[in-house]
Amino acid sequence: MRGKVILEEAWALPRLEEKTKWWASLFSHEPEKHTQEIQDLTETRLAYADKHGVGYTILSYTAPGVQDIFDPKEAQALAVEINDYAAEKIKAHPDTLGSFATLSMHNPEEAAAELTRCVKEYGFLGALVNDTQRAGADGDDMIFYDGPEWDVFWKTVTDLDVPFYLHPRNPTGTIHEKLWKDRSWLIGPPLSFAHGVSLHLLGMVTNGVFDRHPKLQIIIGHLGEHIPFDLWRINHWFEDRKKLLNPGLDCKKTIREYFNENVWITTSGHFSTTTLNFCCNEVGSDRILFSVDYPFENFEDACGWFDNMEINTADRKKIGRENAKKLFKLGKYKDSETKVI
Amino acid sequence: MRGKVILEEAWALPRLEEKTKWWASLFSHEPEKHTQEIQDLTETRLAYADKHGVGYTILSYTAPGVQDIFDPKEAQALAVEINDYAAEKIKAHPDTLGSFATLSMHNPEEAAAELTRCVKEYGFLGALVNDTQRAGADGDDMIFYDGPEWDVFWKTVTDLDVPFYLHPRNPTGTIHEKLWKDRSWLIGPPLSFAHGVSLHLLGMVTNGVFDRHPKLQIIIGHLGEHIPFDLWRINHWFEDRKKLLNPGLDCKKTIREYFNENVWITTSGHFSTTTLNFCCNEVGSDRILFSVDYPFENFEDACGWFDNMEINTADRKKIGRENAKKLFKLGKYKDSETKVI
Amino acid sequence: MRGKVILEEAWALPRLEEKTKWWASLFSHEPEKHTQEIQDLTETRLAYADKHGVGYTILSYTAPGVQDIFDPKEAQALAVEINDYAAEKIKAHPDTLGSFATLSMHNPEEAAAELTRCVKEYGFLGALVNDTQRAGADGDDMIFYDGPEWDVFWKTVTDLDVPFYLHPRNPTGTIHEKLWKDRSWLIGPPLSFAHGVSLHLLGMVTNGVFDRHPKLQIIIGHLGEHIPFDLWRINHWFEDRKKLLNPGLDCKKTIREYFNENVWITTSGHFSTTTLNFCCNEVGSDRILFSVDYPFENFEDACGWFDNMEINTADRKKIGRENAKKLFKLGKYKDSETKVI
Amino acid sequence: MRGKVILEEAWALPRLEEKTKWWASLFSHEPEKHTQEIQDLTETRLAYADKHGVGYTILSYTAPGVQDIFDPKEAQALAVEINDYAAEKIKAHPDTLGSFATLSMHNPEEAAAELTRCVKEYGFLGALVNDTQRAGADGDDMIFYDGPEWDVFWKTVTDLDVPFYLHPRNPTGTIHEKLWKDRSWLIGPPLSFAHGVSLHLLGMVTNGVFDRHPKLQIIIGHLGEHIPFDLWRINHWFEDRKKLLNPGLDCKKTIREYFNENVWITTSGHFSTTTLNFCCNEVGSDRILFSVDYPFENFEDACGWFDNMEINTADRKKIGRENAKKLFKLGKYKDSETKVI
Repeated sequence: MRGKVILEEAWALPRLEEKTKWWASLFSHEPEKHTQEIQDLTETRLAYADKHGVGYTILSYTAPGVQDIFDPKEAQALAVEINDYAAEKIKAHPDTLGSFATLSMHNPEEAAAELTRCVKEYGFLGALVNDTQRAGADGDDMIFYDGPEWDVFWKTVTDLDVPFYLHPRNPTGTIHEKLWKDRSWLIGPPLSFAHGVSLHLLGMVTNGVFDRHPKLQIIIGHLGEHIPFDLWRINHWFEDRKKLLNPGLDCKKTIREYFNENVWITTSGHFSTTTLNFCCNEVGSDRILFSVDYPFENFEDACGWFDNMEINTADRKKIGRENAKKLFKLGKYKDSETKVI
Repeated sequence: MRGKVILEEAWALPRLEEKTKWWASLFSHEPEKHTQEIQDLTETRLAYADKHGVGYTILSYTAPGVQDIFDPKEAQALAVEINDYAAEKIKAHPDTLGSFATLSMHNPEEAAAELTRCVKEYGFLGALVNDTQRAGADGDDMIFYDGPEWDVFWKTVTDLDVPFYLHPRNPTGTIHEKLWKDRSWLIGPPLSFAHGVSLHLLGMVTNGVFDRHPKLQIIIGHLGEHIPFDLWRINHWFEDRKKLLNPGLDCKKTIREYFNENVWITTSGHFSTTTLNFCCNEVGSDRILFSVDYPFENFEDACGWFDNMEINTADRKKIGRENAKKLFKLGKYKDSETKVI
Repeated sequence: MRGKVILEEAWALPRLEEKTKWWASLFSHEPEKHTQEIQDLTETRLAYADKHGVGYTILSYTAPGVQDIFDPKEAQALAVEINDYAAEKIKAHPDTLGSFATLSMHNPEEAAAELTRCVKEYGFLGALVNDTQRAGADGDDMIFYDGPEWDVFWKTVTDLDVPFYLHPRNPTGTIHEKLWKDRSWLIGPPLSFAHGVSLHLLGMVTNGVFDRHPKLQIIIGHLGEHIPFDLWRINHWFEDRKKLLNPGLDCKKTIREYFNENVWITTSGHFSTTTLNFCCNEVGSDRILFSVDYPFENFEDACGWFDNMEINTADRKKIGRENAKKLFKLGKYKDSETKVI
Repeated sequence: MRGKVILEEAWALPRLEEKTKWWASLFSHEPEKHTQEIQDLTETRLAYADKHGVGYTILSYTAPGVQDIFDPKEAQALAVEINDYAAEKIKAHPDTLGSFATLSMHNPEEAAAELTRCVKEYGFLGALVNDTQRAGADGDDMIFYDGPEWDVFWKTVTDLDVPFYLHPRNPTGTIHEKLWKDRSWLIGPPLSFAHGVSLHLLGMVTNGVFDRHPKLQIIIGHLGEHIPFDLWRINHWFEDRKKLLNPGLDCKKTIREYFNENVWITTSGHFSTTTLNFCCNEVGSDRILFSVDYPFENFEDACGWFDNMEINTADRKKIGRENAKKLFKLGKYKDSETKVI
């Protein structure tokens, strides 16, 4: 279909090219090409988009990005630089490019202020943060955002009425070393990404973030970072405990209700018809958003799959575009070609 | 249906009753009942089984069990005690009760020897081990079984031609404290169990255990500890890397082939028709085994679901009994009542 | 869940009790009970509804009903009698009972006029017609509504902005005798119902009814009378032919688009989670409506299944109530209890 | 994958070329090409097979074929001619081509005798018959094979231990004219094929054919001619009636058991991953066989789909080859290339 919207689409600052190249060498067989693609925000990217029927792209800074910077000041400075850079780049493309704010997550108030600036000044559409914030003198601490000290931040997010994308990052620090170093092939998409985000998102559930901020909208990628597979099991365990124990887990709603009212999942990097069908059943097609995960995935794989897989016409439109238009209030977004292939 | 086989069914030593009670108090609203049920290997359990159409039960020692004992000698002594106790208990019930060996996993040779003893002397049907072995002076180390030093053990397992059940245990030690202490409701079935076992099993894949031991049969519970959800994504990532990078991940087979040739999943604690249907599609009904997870789950929930859920007749028989009969060579197991409900 | 809406719910005139009893004896083991239930429009029915969480019922006259009357005048008189009777009965229950118009389908103008009367005078919510109208001197003809002579009727339906439920009836006349008499167990729900309605609905598609009346909304029961199973195959065959042949089938849209824009399916008599999941994937949850098919099915089976089956929270609400509220503009319908179980 | 087996693959006698061309003009945009392809049993066909990884093809005569010939003698003569022709053609290709017997179905004994001749003399692998046999002076009668007079035939089929493929044919005769003439686009794959075969197969179920011949193996195409969609509903209706009524339907088994013990479905002309997944759940992957339906479908569509769709490795092998090898005892069939793509 034409006019698709995508929202897990990474870029990197050209001034960090050496780091980007080194990073690319770890997983890409064409690190030069990858570096070129990820540093480009407009030309190559918009050409791919046009070729593959993507009408609107929401950009975000690549992982681990600012979440890897354990010095708070340095992290904040980098976040500001990234946001200014992105705003400048997308300015000329209001009909095809939007952006998530990049945030340093060392301090809730500071993160809230930067998000506010990006939304109000630049028209950014929300924030994308790469899992926990690395912190501490040696970078060995992890800041989660599921505690009460983050309420001020989540209040700002809901006041601004924008969604928050909880994106994975690689596990770092001694805390993870024992788990992952001897099984490094599992770092990233095969396993560690889902471990990180599922823990963080379910932590937000059990620590009451959604109860205190019932309008909060969190997006997670890769068809839900494993959680949809276990919705029955989680529900079974939580509801049994809630019913039987006192005191105990005091979530006000069921896990299925949080997934229906506060969580969205994207198809980034998970182009499986069988798994998508399963997610439509367990999560619901109203909360699923198409995405590519470019340049870690390519447009051809993602859009070729999405445009040709078997699904009912309504859900293809919803997942491909309509759900995103509602969530991000893309009223300004004109998709001239609305014919669904 | 009558004559079902179940295989993630826990028991605990009566001499450790105080510990069992304390443990039960953490998650059960009826710790006394739970304690009674888990300490009974025959009476209560066989009455439930008969009432709910279970013909054969394979017992195993409850988690964390021996995997929590970081002193090697103490761990080995406990394993031997457990195996002797179980052998004595099931002796009178050859048609209805079998057992997995409990193993201390501090030393591959020692584990192999104890498994050999249990299989040859007691007719045990394989081993069930609770994820990583806690180790080190302060219990803060974790022994994984996916390195080459465990080849001697896996060789014994395949020589004995018995399966190995990789069961979860709670995350312990400082390594896990930062992750789980502020989100303790996620410890156990809701999340940490799947994190532990999926890392360990996929570590065995990427570290070549199944390539070196192509006949090895590993069972994991809870419909596959999240992995079936991501088979497409894992396959996509591994196969791309294998094709493109040199040197790189050198698994000889695809993740789907390992799941078809080396891995089994059980329904323990995951009584979801939609997820089971999905697993039949992604894993295949020839590799799925019914189980209860008693006494953490009850027979009524598990068997009520399994006997009445909608599925084709052949797969109900396979998952309920036939697959287990083949895997465990239960030729001696006579299910007099074979009528599938 | 409370507040469900149901819409394939049959009743019969008490003055035809003998015929109803004879009919009931063909399929019911309790013909007396069935006769009592189907002749009651309010008491028994509303008690069941309340007990099982149904908030609003749309009544319709039982099959074959007026479609079995091959004398046009007699058919019209019976339709009017039925509508007047239903209007009188539901008057006292505006918050819990609505009605479909019953129509003689011998003459498009007459049918349109009676529908208009029922909608405007009685506030009926649409029409339910039992497949083809039996006609001809000996009742051996069948009137289909997919030809251009019915455009006047369909224009009225869309002008009135009400849906039309195409319900099955038993095959009658010599035309069907050779097919069904030696396999009478297949008459009705097991097969003939789906054969009749699938032919009729797809005839409307291929004969251009939906192209000429793009706002027309047709409801079919039993999860779609087999058509969702073959959407891929129908689409494959139609689209290939459209692309390749000239002149040929000239539907303006694809079969999937008609199902997305003109067709609704209900769960009447088909309480299968696996098939519902499949229909959510192939048809989409926005076009599926819960229904019982009382008194041929009972509330306990239908609601017990619907309230407890595994599905995401949003789709349970949509299918159970929200889709019907939109389709029938049930603004007046207050569901005081909106808690989804 | 290499080495696939296919079994709904049509051919036509070259001496009937004019009729074949006329027929082809009704649905094909390339009637010349179609005619060439369907008249070739070896060259073109085996080239396609080799290119698309098909190792073994079971040929059958195209529909309506002999089932359209209402003169019994003419029908029998044509069947014999067809069988002799096919036997001669495939003789040189024992490793790649097999054949179903073509049968005149006017007389059970005659049909049994011809099948016996084909199996014993020619090594044919079973029979493929195109739904009902047209009969009567004007071709207006239909012979079904679900009555007791066909027991002698079914006994022969089971004695020979070969399967019987119940393939559709177009509805003919005045009996069908009223239903299909004004909606001719529904004749064939979009609808009438499934109506014909589903009635016939379920007639065999309800008329006790499988009870009297419990070893009988019937194959139906197109993923089951709609029946899998309604297995729950058929089961619900039959089992309720069996339990409640006396006397009534006296099938000895449930519909699900017949599908598990007597029925096979093929993918011919239905290359839908979602529907195949559904059939794996409702019918079971042990009873599903890959097929193309060449030359009405092409190898590229069929094999391109099958080789690349997402499914577990075991089921791809089973459906693509292993199930067929078991059913047809293709011990002689050596698939030198067994690597599953």
